[in-house]
Amino acid sequence: MAKELTVIVGAGPGNGLAFGRRFLAEGHKVAMLARHADDLEQLRLQLPDAHYFACDVTEPEQIHGVFKQIQQQLGTVDTLIYNAGAGAFGNIEDISAKQFENAWRVNALGCFCCVKEVLADMRDAGAGSIIVIGATASLRGGGEFAAFSSAKGAQRNLVQSIARHLGPHGIHAAYVVIDGVIDTARTRKHLSDKPDEFFLHPDDIAQTVFHLTKQPQSAWTFELDVRPFKENW
Amino acid sequence: MAKELTVIVGAGPGNGLAFGRRFLAEGHKVAMLARHADDLEQLRLQLPDAHYFACDVTEPEQIHGVFKQIQQQLGTVDTLIYNAGAGAFGNIEDISAKQFENAWRVNALGCFCCVKEVLADMRDAGAGSIIVIGATASLRGGGEFAAFSSAKGAQRNLVQSIARHLGPHGIHAAYVVIDGVIDTARTRKHLSDKPDEFFLHPDDIAQTVFHLTKQPQSAWTFELDVRPFKENW
Amino acid sequence: MAKELTVIVGAGPGNGLAFGRRFLAEGHKVAMLARHADDLEQLRLQLPDAHYFACDVTEPEQIHGVFKQIQQQLGTVDTLIYNAGAGAFGNIEDISAKQFENAWRVNALGCFCCVKEVLADMRDAGAGSIIVIGATASLRGGGEFAAFSSAKGAQRNLVQSIARHLGPHGIHAAYVVIDGVIDTARTRKHLSDKPDEFFLHPDDIAQTVFHLTKQPQSAWTFELDVRPFKENW
Amino acid sequence: MAKELTVIVGAGPGNGLAFGRRFLAEGHKVAMLARHADDLEQLRLQLPDAHYFACDVTEPEQIHGVFKQIQQQLGTVDTLIYNAGAGAFGNIEDISAKQFENAWRVNALGCFCCVKEVLADMRDAGAGSIIVIGATASLRGGGEFAAFSSAKGAQRNLVQSIARHLGPHGIHAAYVVIDGVIDTARTRKHLSDKPDEFFLHPDDIAQTVFHLTKQPQSAWTFELDVRPFKENW
Repeated sequence: MAKELTVIVGAGPGNGLAFGRRFLAEGHKVAMLARHADDLEQLRLQLPDAHYFACDVTEPEQIHGVFKQIQQQLGTVDTLIYNAGAGAFGNIEDISAKQFENAWRVNALGCFCCVKEVLADMRDAGAGSIIVIGATASLRGGGEFAAFSSAKGAQRNLVQSIARHLGPHGIHAAYVVIDGVIDTARTRKHLSDKPDEFFLHPDDIAQTVFHLTKQPQSAWTFELDVRPFKENW
Repeated sequence: MAKELTVIVGAGPGNGLAFGRRFLAEGHKVAMLARHADDLEQLRLQLPDAHYFACDVTEPEQIHGVFKQIQQQLGTVDTLIYNAGAGAFGNIEDISAKQFENAWRVNALGCFCCVKEVLADMRDAGAGSIIVIGATASLRGGGEFAAFSSAKGAQRNLVQSIARHLGPHGIHAAYVVIDGVIDTARTRKHLSDKPDEFFLHPDDIAQTVFHLTKQPQSAWTFELDVRPFKENW
Repeated sequence: MAKELTVIVGAGPGNGLAFGRRFLAEGHKVAMLARHADDLEQLRLQLPDAHYFACDVTEPEQIHGVFKQIQQQLGTVDTLIYNAGAGAFGNIEDISAKQFENAWRVNALGCFCCVKEVLADMRDAGAGSIIVIGATASLRGGGEFAAFSSAKGAQRNLVQSIARHLGPHGIHAAYVVIDGVIDTARTRKHLSDKPDEFFLHPDDIAQTVFHLTKQPQSAWTFELDVRPFKENW
Repeated sequence: MAKELTVIVGAGPGNGLAFGRRFLAEGHKVAMLARHADDLEQLRLQLPDAHYFACDVTEPEQIHGVFKQIQQQLGTVDTLIYNAGAGAFGNIEDISAKQFENAWRVNALGCFCCVKEVLADMRDAGAGSIIVIGATASLRGGGEFAAFSSAKGAQRNLVQSIARHLGPHGIHAAYVVIDGVIDTARTRKHLSDKPDEFFLHPDDIAQTVFHLTKQPQSAWTFELDVRPFKENW
């Protein structure tokens, strides 16, 4: 039997790497997409068995080209994990229309385009998993998150629409709301005063992401939250 | 004392006209913005006392130009009502990236840009009302509303972010979730089998929109829903 | 034409008094219910034109008796405002089953029973308003609000069920989520370090409550929030 | 190492049996509580390795007695699954105060009391899982679910309060929103025209319930939904 193929969009040293590691360990082929070639080389050193592709998700044409390449080299996509997520910090007065648009392109338009690329094969198979990584800002428009929370709100409603439309066709779309700070070298440096228990460990998130892809179709989850046990929410 | 100025973006024959009528009746100056000059002429026949400006809200530069013109001709804006809202009907398979983007431009980016244009004056005044018209799709990603619900989700989180940031500065942002079909010549024709009580009457919505702008600042509403009493929700 | 009758359950020196004052000013007859006869006498001094009834809303039999009395003395009820709301402060470890039950009796069972008492007349009239006063805890189970937030959750879902069922019969049920501290002598004393702008003024809440009872039936609100403009939410 | 103990409250032939089967298979001791001794005997035939206790969860004293018995016979509770859930069908006009109260006792008070019984041991251990089974009605007050949705709203806010309070103490409380009809002999008979894919299979729900109890504490889920892939939601 052919190996399943999992594509991870927005592959960084936190979630992306952990998801890749987990799906490789489960016997999948794994394709990792990130914006900068340098970052991909860093990831490749840590996870040499995955396949790497440079892709700026704010550019629909690039997405189209990369997915064509993936499908030719690796076959049809069984699981798509959309982990790209960024957005300029700041309130409505701070941010520009450009920054506002860019946050939407990374979080919503990129997700829309990636899903479009895997749809035909998943529809043919009558199966597939689409897991999108959200944030607290998906549910709440914080004052200092004018761009990011708007982009995440766009993403959440999109994925809900996708789940409702594709569910009956055997394709499982789910949304993971991450409530807290993910443990990476960068966040640790930034928040060096915080104890271990302050952070979400990417491998722990990966455990729940993998579970979602294995839920039997009589009991699919659309949305769940994850947060550290010590979190004040 | 100078008359207050209310700007209604997305002025059509339903809500836009009713809002204009109401704020004129309350003694405001009213500026109405719509995309097509023809539509503006139709509105002018029905509400000659308002001021009319053609503006495509998907174009930030146009928004900037029109608001400059309004501010020069009519003064500072006291109340901004963002009523622009449209989006291609269809599920993720039906709609294109272009349609997906366009829905976001009308509902979210246009709103962002209009708020930016009135911010400086409202901050100077330490007062102002920003009322944005949402829809059920703001809260729920229906399968056949992949573009519209994503755009409305982006809009709602944006307005929530604006409300949180600007509230303490004396500026009241509120979000009106319209759950149902608004009574216009077009919807009546389309849904000619439906009884009167099926529709939301724009003058009735205007009553609540006006109330929001008059709430004392110790008890401001951020969000409310409106629907016809017979609605099955 | 006979005066309309408004019944305010849970009449205290904050919201209750303000609601009574407002509906009296609008030409209604007003009946005020509170638990303790002493409190009623205090209210009567401030608002002598209302009618006062002692009623412990945790006791369905008392509710039944008092509403019979109201209907005989004052006629059919046009507007019911359910403002009773209390609950022991504390987390699951702090509070007893007795306290947990009592919070539910005040917030949910009492509301259920009061609505039952006015239903027959409202159904006969094909009209009526039922306004229930909720809290942030209606939407969120805070750790230190194990009893209160559970009781408020019970109340909110009940009122939503009532609104869905009774709306098509011409009866408008609405839920007001108060997010903040109401300005009363007691809260001022307790929070003497807080500035004016920290508090919700009961007369300002009354303005929105009254608006809800006047919404035309093509555009009824089920739920809205109110909070002070300076609130950090 | 001693076996872990899982207690399942509200053990019926659907979820209860499936949860029992799963946790037994994972090497736990399992205690099953149901109201009627007859039902327990039926379950015992199918799952003889579990321990059975008759308990009416509307009676706090019975709950206390049964948990004392469990703790003496089987030791401290590691996982509590609260699956009791019932409520008279009907709108506010149909149901009585008695029915309204009973629904709350089964869904909310019973849950409160069971959690109180396991708290001391879980606090001592600094660990434990509390999984509560909710329903769509937990989130939405349907017109014909006046009692059930109010009771489920009370339950959900309670469990959220518990999760917020106990999380930092190492105890994981989670809420599973079941959106659909569970596959049992009774629902199959009742809905004999529905295809297989209409139903949630209890073993599939059990898979996600078990996953929740195994989440590492850096990434705990509070709430998730489960529904059949064909569900129109």
